[in-house]
Amino acid sequence: MGTGKIVLALDGMGGDHAPDVIVNGADIARERYPGTSFLLFGDPARLKPLVDKRKGLSQVLEIVPAEDAVLAEDKPSFALRRRRKSSMWLAVDAAAQGHADTVVSAGNTGALLAISMFAMRTIAGAHRPALASFLPTSRGETVMLDLGANLECDADNLAEFAVMGSVFAQVLLGLDRPKVGLLNVGSEEEKGHEELRQAAAWLRGEKSPVNFHGFVEGNDIGSGLVDVVVTDGFTGNIALKSIEGTAKVVFGFVGDAFKTSTFAKIGYLFASGAWNKLRKRVDPRRYNGGVFLGLDGVCVKSHGGTDALGFAYAIGVAVDLVRYEYKNKLAEGLTKLREVASAAEASPATLQASGGVE
Amino acid sequence: MGTGKIVLALDGMGGDHAPDVIVNGADIARERYPGTSFLLFGDPARLKPLVDKRKGLSQVLEIVPAEDAVLAEDKPSFALRRRRKSSMWLAVDAAAQGHADTVVSAGNTGALLAISMFAMRTIAGAHRPALASFLPTSRGETVMLDLGANLECDADNLAEFAVMGSVFAQVLLGLDRPKVGLLNVGSEEEKGHEELRQAAAWLRGEKSPVNFHGFVEGNDIGSGLVDVVVTDGFTGNIALKSIEGTAKVVFGFVGDAFKTSTFAKIGYLFASGAWNKLRKRVDPRRYNGGVFLGLDGVCVKSHGGTDALGFAYAIGVAVDLVRYEYKNKLAEGLTKLREVASAAEASPATLQASGGVE
Repeated sequence: MGTGKIVLALDGMGGDHAPDVIVNGADIARERYPGTSFLLFGDPARLKPLVDKRKGLSQVLEIVPAEDAVLAEDKPSFALRRRRKSSMWLAVDAAAQGHADTVVSAGNTGALLAISMFAMRTIAGAHRPALASFLPTSRGETVMLDLGANLECDADNLAEFAVMGSVFAQVLLGLDRPKVGLLNVGSEEEKGHEELRQAAAWLRGEKSPVNFHGFVEGNDIGSGLVDVVVTDGFTGNIALKSIEGTAKVVFGFVGDAFKTSTFAKIGYLFASGAWNKLRKRVDPRRYNGGVFLGLDGVCVKSHGGTDALGFAYAIGVAVDLVRYEYKNKLAEGLTKLREVASAAEASPATLQASGGVE
Repeated sequence: MGTGKIVLALDGMGGDHAPDVIVNGADIARERYPGTSFLLFGDPARLKPLVDKRKGLSQVLEIVPAEDAVLAEDKPSFALRRRRKSSMWLAVDAAAQGHADTVVSAGNTGALLAISMFAMRTIAGAHRPALASFLPTSRGETVMLDLGANLECDADNLAEFAVMGSVFAQVLLGLDRPKVGLLNVGSEEEKGHEELRQAAAWLRGEKSPVNFHGFVEGNDIGSGLVDVVVTDGFTGNIALKSIEGTAKVVFGFVGDAFKTSTFAKIGYLFASGAWNKLRKRVDPRRYNGGVFLGLDGVCVKSHGGTDALGFAYAIGVAVDLVRYEYKNKLAEGLTKLREVASAAEASPATLQASGGVE
């Protein structure tokens, strides 16, 4: 465990409710994580009055002027090239240059990915960063990645994501040997694209850097069969949104059912305590720490529409990643993966042909 | 609307609870759909006693002996080549040869796809068949395809699936101009793989054979934004299972919440009527008609684990596809699609480069 103060760079102007939510979130996080301090990037005229109202916060926070801001509609390439003076760019750069240990932004996801890739680069052994988050399941919480940073992934990417997700689960969920699964259309070894089967072959062995469970299917995400679900960014984005959408629809169905009759309404009155407790358990604000894994730095993406409590959770994720030395552990895991993959290339395993529905 | 008797070929030995569920399902369907008759393929020694017990059924059903059966663990290629005398093969062949109008099986999905592709071939204008089903949504029901028949799809496949799904929704859901969406990681035109953008370009025009909404995201499936969701078989399989898994988890959460306190238990007593009505609304047996669309024939796949009521629903899907002339309508739609695609090739539209998270 790392010691000493942790310095966080915050994008003060990113997100739907910036800067209020950013400042309030930082204030909540300050109380939760003593020993943290903040560099808050943005427009001083808007930030200073908010910070000055919070005495405790103003003692551990420094406002760093940024004259520009990335907009929600900016293309990543535009933000990367033309928003060099934005609060997002300067905050990421502060973390990349070592002035801060980590950066948190609720701004434009694609822009944040492009800027952090450019400023931080990927860590040695990783070809691409992936966007990861965790979800509530029947058994607790599961990490899923990639959620949309890479639409197409080869076997190297997928195997690296497995290592990134495993280390993330160790650090964030406190698990010793997180179980890792590759998302596929069936659990049998011969299923799916060749990329998947190649990645599985590397991860399966005795010297694997992760505790590999094998292939998992869509329904295994919610059941919590594994602690880490690895997939390409196209599939991951669609699976995540399908899950969020379904949860919303089913809660809606249940809510409607409570309104269908007088009996049901009375039932709701009695059950409302339990119902509210449940809603809290699946509160999306608790699952508000999307992280770009695989960078040579720590960059956390908060949902754009979050409130202060949600932003404080995202800060908490960043604090844990720094405190429990995510970057060093990831570098070790990726080194092990390279050794396994090189050994496999020296004696290539036979991969069977791709199979559809069986 | 077609007239006259409809003859259904049934795989009497396919599924976890065959042949009992098959015979009982046929008996329920016989009452629901007067004017249907059945060719039941399988082992007469096992089928005859079950059929003889049901007087009404035995008058409209003929048992056709089949000495072999496809097993759940058979590879598609094995079933195709080595199970020529199975109940599945003979039932599909009866429909392919015109002895029956359609075939229904609860057996091995991959085997059924391989056999029906071989025996029926694809319809003119379709490169590949797709597996389609419908799901309950906030607004009613939505058709989704492909659910796993094709792990990789090009633009032709996706555009053809859009036509297949649109005609399926017309016939099964009685919609005049079903809204069709292509599943993607964002709704903007420049998002996603090139295959998706090419298919969208064909479907978007004035002369399109479908009422094209554009790109939809994972959360739009459950909200019922469109009537037909089109995707490749890898993504569709994972999205479908993610949705099923999430619905199960959330219902589990709600059930647990009702048990957390005495108050909640009392609430459950009052609300149980509404709760049971809801469970009925999302009863998986009602969504038990997976269909291989795009064949030059009608082949319906029932879930392997279904009960008699579920199997009767699958028979109902087959009856509707025949009665409302699915095949003819599909042929028309595919012809229109070819015209649109040829015109586009004569004056190629410029497609923008692939974009990730934006």
